[in-house]
Amino acid sequence: MTIRRIEPYARLCNAVIHGQTVYLAGQCAEDTSLDMKGQTEDILRQIDALLGSVGSSKSKLLQVTIFITDLRDFDAMNEAWDAWVDKDNLPARATVEVSKLADPGWKLEMTAIAAL
Amino acid sequence: MTIRRIEPYARLCNAVIHGQTVYLAGQCAEDTSLDMKGQTEDILRQIDALLGSVGSSKSKLLQVTIFITDLRDFDAMNEAWDAWVDKDNLPARATVEVSKLADPGWKLEMTAIAAL
Amino acid sequence: MTIRRIEPYARLCNAVIHGQTVYLAGQCAEDTSLDMKGQTEDILRQIDALLGSVGSSKSKLLQVTIFITDLRDFDAMNEAWDAWVDKDNLPARATVEVSKLADPGWKLEMTAIAAL
Repeated sequence: MTIRRIEPYARLCNAVIHGQTVYLAGQCAEDTSLDMKGQTEDILRQIDALLGSVGSSKSKLLQVTIFITDLRDFDAMNEAWDAWVDKDNLPARATVEVSKLADPGWKLEMTAIAAL
Repeated sequence: MTIRRIEPYARLCNAVIHGQTVYLAGQCAEDTSLDMKGQTEDILRQIDALLGSVGSSKSKLLQVTIFITDLRDFDAMNEAWDAWVDKDNLPARATVEVSKLADPGWKLEMTAIAAL
Repeated sequence: MTIRRIEPYARLCNAVIHGQTVYLAGQCAEDTSLDMKGQTEDILRQIDALLGSVGSSKSKLLQVTIFITDLRDFDAMNEAWDAWVDKDNLPARATVEVSKLADPGWKLEMTAIAAL
């Protein structure tokens, strides 16, 4: 099965395709001044762009893992999620609160596995 | 490869099948009054039911990630795990302590990838 | 698709192969006296050995998740990572800070999915 590596940076790729499966790097907000809802929307836009660039889409998400820094903002995150996610093609999802993310301005980080 | 989505809720599916691979949502105890061992047994029963409903089983687990809220209960979690897991078909596993889960009553959450 | 289980221990396998995909258990330092850079090198050596034993390699890594106990050591971890990772074949990666790992001496734990 072929491997395709998308958007390589210094130490990681933003996505890696293996056969029919796409693995995403942890996605974080570009604009850290945003609140939880805004950062979630920022991330979801990036996921749209990234999946779109390889011919996949949010409708093909399989499993999403959400690392959130403050679960008191769980509802704000879900508000952005609910407005975005394809209701007919919902992925499996897990959300846990972690103590910190690599940039202190990041309020959440999402990884995902999608189908091509 | 076909995608099948199992038990869709408001914002996520409890499991998603892609080809021969099954991705589970984060599984948490239904009865939050239980202690760590009890919550683990509760989750493992749900995994049995979920995998069984798609023609898979615990013997086909590939990778399990356990998010636990208090590692002082690691042994209690493992007691339930050891009594349940198929000794001839052990999955890869990782366990980390997270600061919180979405419901304050949840003591642990498990995600998994299994074969069909 | 066949499943092959590598290095089974009491309650988990160190790796599980499903078709062309390899799932690793959480990898931790064998020598807990090492600092963050040393523990990272220790883990990366184990990943090399484990992937090598099944005919894969770091050049076939797809997605890596790093659970680190103190993000102040992020740069030290990355130093070891950057010296090790195949610059032409970078995996997707996510790093989050967790509050604790199963052994209090462990400074980080890595899980990964690789291609065969």
